[in-house]
Amino acid sequence: MVNKFKRVLIGRPMKSGEIEGEKLTKLKALAVLSSDALSSVAYGTEQILIVLMAAGFAAVWYSIPISIAVLGLLFILILSYRQTIFAYPSGGGAYIVAKKNLGVPVGLLAGGSLLVDYILTVAVSSSAGTDAITSAFPSLHDHRVLIAMVMILFLTIMNLRGVTESASVLAIPVYLFVISIFVLIISGVIKYAFGGIHAAAPALGTTVSNVSLFLLLKAFSSGCSALTGVEAVSNAIPNFKQPSEKNAARTLIMMGTILGAMFIGISLLAYWYGIAPNPKETVVSQIANATFGRGVIYYIIQGITALILFLAANTAYSAFPLLAFMLAKDKFMPRMFMVRGDRLGFSNGIINLGVLSALLVIVFQGNTENLIPLYALGVFIPFTLSQLGMMIRWTKLRPSGWKIKFIINTIGMVTTLTIALIFVFTKFTHIWMVFIFLPIVIYIFYQTERHYRNTAEQLRIDVLRDKPVIKGNTIVIPIAGITQVVKQSIGYAKSVTDNVVAVYVGFNDEEIERMEKKWAEWNPGVRLIVLRSSYRSVTRPLMKFINTVEWKTSATDHITVLIPQFITKHWWQHILHNQTSLLLRAYLFNQKNVVISTFPFHLNK
Amino acid sequence: MVNKFKRVLIGRPMKSGEIEGEKLTKLKALAVLSSDALSSVAYGTEQILIVLMAAGFAAVWYSIPISIAVLGLLFILILSYRQTIFAYPSGGGAYIVAKKNLGVPVGLLAGGSLLVDYILTVAVSSSAGTDAITSAFPSLHDHRVLIAMVMILFLTIMNLRGVTESASVLAIPVYLFVISIFVLIISGVIKYAFGGIHAAAPALGTTVSNVSLFLLLKAFSSGCSALTGVEAVSNAIPNFKQPSEKNAARTLIMMGTILGAMFIGISLLAYWYGIAPNPKETVVSQIANATFGRGVIYYIIQGITALILFLAANTAYSAFPLLAFMLAKDKFMPRMFMVRGDRLGFSNGIINLGVLSALLVIVFQGNTENLIPLYALGVFIPFTLSQLGMMIRWTKLRPSGWKIKFIINTIGMVTTLTIALIFVFTKFTHIWMVFIFLPIVIYIFYQTERHYRNTAEQLRIDVLRDKPVIKGNTIVIPIAGITQVVKQSIGYAKSVTDNVVAVYVGFNDEEIERMEKKWAEWNPGVRLIVLRSSYRSVTRPLMKFINTVEWKTSATDHITVLIPQFITKHWWQHILHNQTSLLLRAYLFNQKNVVISTFPFHLNK
Repeated sequence: MVNKFKRVLIGRPMKSGEIEGEKLTKLKALAVLSSDALSSVAYGTEQILIVLMAAGFAAVWYSIPISIAVLGLLFILILSYRQTIFAYPSGGGAYIVAKKNLGVPVGLLAGGSLLVDYILTVAVSSSAGTDAITSAFPSLHDHRVLIAMVMILFLTIMNLRGVTESASVLAIPVYLFVISIFVLIISGVIKYAFGGIHAAAPALGTTVSNVSLFLLLKAFSSGCSALTGVEAVSNAIPNFKQPSEKNAARTLIMMGTILGAMFIGISLLAYWYGIAPNPKETVVSQIANATFGRGVIYYIIQGITALILFLAANTAYSAFPLLAFMLAKDKFMPRMFMVRGDRLGFSNGIINLGVLSALLVIVFQGNTENLIPLYALGVFIPFTLSQLGMMIRWTKLRPSGWKIKFIINTIGMVTTLTIALIFVFTKFTHIWMVFIFLPIVIYIFYQTERHYRNTAEQLRIDVLRDKPVIKGNTIVIPIAGITQVVKQSIGYAKSVTDNVVAVYVGFNDEEIERMEKKWAEWNPGVRLIVLRSSYRSVTRPLMKFINTVEWKTSATDHITVLIPQFITKHWWQHILHNQTSLLLRAYLFNQKNVVISTFPFHLNK
Repeated sequence: MVNKFKRVLIGRPMKSGEIEGEKLTKLKALAVLSSDALSSVAYGTEQILIVLMAAGFAAVWYSIPISIAVLGLLFILILSYRQTIFAYPSGGGAYIVAKKNLGVPVGLLAGGSLLVDYILTVAVSSSAGTDAITSAFPSLHDHRVLIAMVMILFLTIMNLRGVTESASVLAIPVYLFVISIFVLIISGVIKYAFGGIHAAAPALGTTVSNVSLFLLLKAFSSGCSALTGVEAVSNAIPNFKQPSEKNAARTLIMMGTILGAMFIGISLLAYWYGIAPNPKETVVSQIANATFGRGVIYYIIQGITALILFLAANTAYSAFPLLAFMLAKDKFMPRMFMVRGDRLGFSNGIINLGVLSALLVIVFQGNTENLIPLYALGVFIPFTLSQLGMMIRWTKLRPSGWKIKFIINTIGMVTTLTIALIFVFTKFTHIWMVFIFLPIVIYIFYQTERHYRNTAEQLRIDVLRDKPVIKGNTIVIPIAGITQVVKQSIGYAKSVTDNVVAVYVGFNDEEIERMEKKWAEWNPGVRLIVLRSSYRSVTRPLMKFINTVEWKTSATDHITVLIPQFITKHWWQHILHNQTSLLLRAYLFNQKNVVISTFPFHLNK
């Protein structure tokens, strides 16, 4: 039943050989790898405006210089990551770069924050996608959490099926998004230029009394959320067509250019149109509405925005399981993250990502604004560590022209570190949990690794000297009466060894006497030991008895406890039998060093 | 951990010998057995008034003739049950009487409705007890469900600890309740007689246009809820001091008299005071308030009322597990209801009652008024069946003077049947689920009995001819590498038989080659079979292999699959190991007829 349901949902199992490497051209790579980064424009400008509004509408003009600053930061990041591409052509995720250059602990810090970051990617993208939908259809606003849940569930199932990431299909919505945003920007600019907009945006340079440096920094750091996802290209170099580094580097620059243009365009339009952020309608929706009205074009823009955010969430579904795999390979995460499922995806990683991000959406009630600070911090910590790793690398290897490279990475590191610190100072109330959560994650990494190391030590064998040792056997059979099951169990036990003892636990003298008499009558060739239980417990006297047997014979014999177990025809019939055998097995399993054998008795009606 | 917590909550285990029969005097028996019946006055009158109010306040005078009719019914019931006492001195619950005289199916109908009834006793009493509390403290009104839950939880824990039902302790609140209600009635009558009440109650006989016969019957049947619990005495005769039947009969009459007096007293006062039912304040609370004001006496009356309702719920905690025990003894319910827990109570019955009644309270949101029709029907079905059983008994046995006895039981039967029918016709919208639920319960009874009968048949042994048969052994050991666990497992297997096969599942040629080479080097004296899995599944190829082994050897050999299993030091480490062995065991257990042996490997760090 469960199996059938799984088949329908996930599809038939696939052979290991069916993994195939489709190599990407620059244009396709741009589509596949940039949805996370490009989709950030759907909320980047809005995050700046939300912060500025705290000082009143007059302060919104600051969004223009802030957006330009974000653009500058984007430029620095692109330059820095371009260097990573050439340095780590086999894929330079922050975990790898930090581990190799800064040591395992820093690598784990980067890895831990990336894991958290991927969970947040899904949570933020599905929440923001929901925003795009509810902006278009305000009546759905009350069902935000549900919509985001459905998105996450759908993504999880799709990824368990194994999205083969057929680049040609994924490319369509990404290009549609880029086109539709540019159409929006150009139409918006034209409309504004021809005076079609009558908004009273505060002039650039207007003095606003209550704008503090703190507020501006906060707005700037919020705007940096538009930069999340730019690292994707540098992680995926092996997927590019030859010459892969060069192609990857060019793709990165193309992506940076498009992202920068869209971001500044949206910011400018938002300013010219005098748009104020509104919890029920996104800034992009307001711009589209003001430009085109609620017509077909408006709904297309909203739909494509939701779609691209959906794809952005999807990128985390490839990145998270892969990082979990790498951490599991280094023994920092449970081995189960290394197992490929029926459809060749890392199912455990996919399921964990789905569950955790859904939990986040529920806890935050699908509130994009509150999720973004966590998300951005989760991105900027590995950004910083990755740049720092590159700096160390240059000083160690010192290739020709390393000084310029070192300087570029240093600028990148200082900038991203500064932004991370601005986050901590300006949004501490939103992000404090990261400082509790990350140490816990890293602690678990270490404990896991330690456990695996210890286990391996205890399991290690010297193939020349460690050989199997043969001992005697003693079998104990707990019985509750004289039945077919007992007959068969004794038959089994006697075909293993002559040291077989049947044990019966009686609750009163009458019961015990009856049993002893019947046993003598039957005479199955096995000794019966009768225990008396004053406390109506079967397990306690049995455990005591097994203790005695262990004490007497464990030096020469293997001790086996043979437990007869009914297998009923229908599952519900299971509850009709005393669960003593399950209880006994659990006790023995945890407390004794005996082999537990289950003798099956299939009830056929 | 779990064990420790259980100890604190439930207490130390008790020896079977600690069950002791404390015999009851009439006065103590009255206290122990009548809390359910007497507590009904806390809601009986109110139920009549709620129905009458549908025709307007002028109709409330009908509560007086209706109360007198209920009183008459009480008289008939007492007479009838007096006869059951003498006929079944070992305890004549409706299940026993109906099963003996009307056959098993009718007995099961009685038993099933009694089980439902006991669950409802707890739900109704805890809801009504909550009403008493929230009447006194209106601010608690919004936490009704929570208060009732806490009551049920407390009762469940108390009964798991084993309330030794020390009659002397239980007697106190019952007598306090009787005294306080009589004090209330007498003070109320005096106050009314001296004209301290200025209420405009409609005169008896006032014509009210929209009072239909249907409404009056409905009100009457609602009033009959005051009679729930009168059967308790006839179930408990063996607990009485000698001469037990006589003592029980006298106790029954005493109880009937007190109940009747209290009920009619409350009804009269409610009429004289012109009280209208109010969802936020009980009728008893309104009377007490009108008589004494919200002073000490008022709070004492409310407190004691809540307490007696609490005790009424407690009676179901002795009755339900006992009835479940009797049904389980007759194989109609799972055997687990026959097991006495650490504290000698039938823990499974107690826990089931607690959970089911709590569910009912949640579903009905602690609404007493909606629960009572179900409750009363649950009582009147076994009432009727029990009387019918007595009628059959008299016609069969025909003792001297049986005709009068037959007539009394016939009147009892006809009356209770009529009331049950009135319930069905006037309150069908409230009680229809009984007609779905009861057949299901009875169907489950029969299925359970059938399963036990079938199992017993398949287990039955002929002690003279059925003897254990000795066969050969083949052991299959699935392995994942060459480790200490594998070494020890092979040692164990080889000490059982020489037919040992180790099976390794490899995912690619390289893995398989490496394994084969290492095995040859180790040479543990056991053949290695290597399976190749294209689908990354370990269980599927293994199951296939075991199929082959079964097909080849099951005629001559027992087949044992020996599964090595890690036992980690800390529970959380468990998730760090692939759960393949658990999965494999589940598959084998359900699909194959092989012995499954678990070889333990205790990791000590």
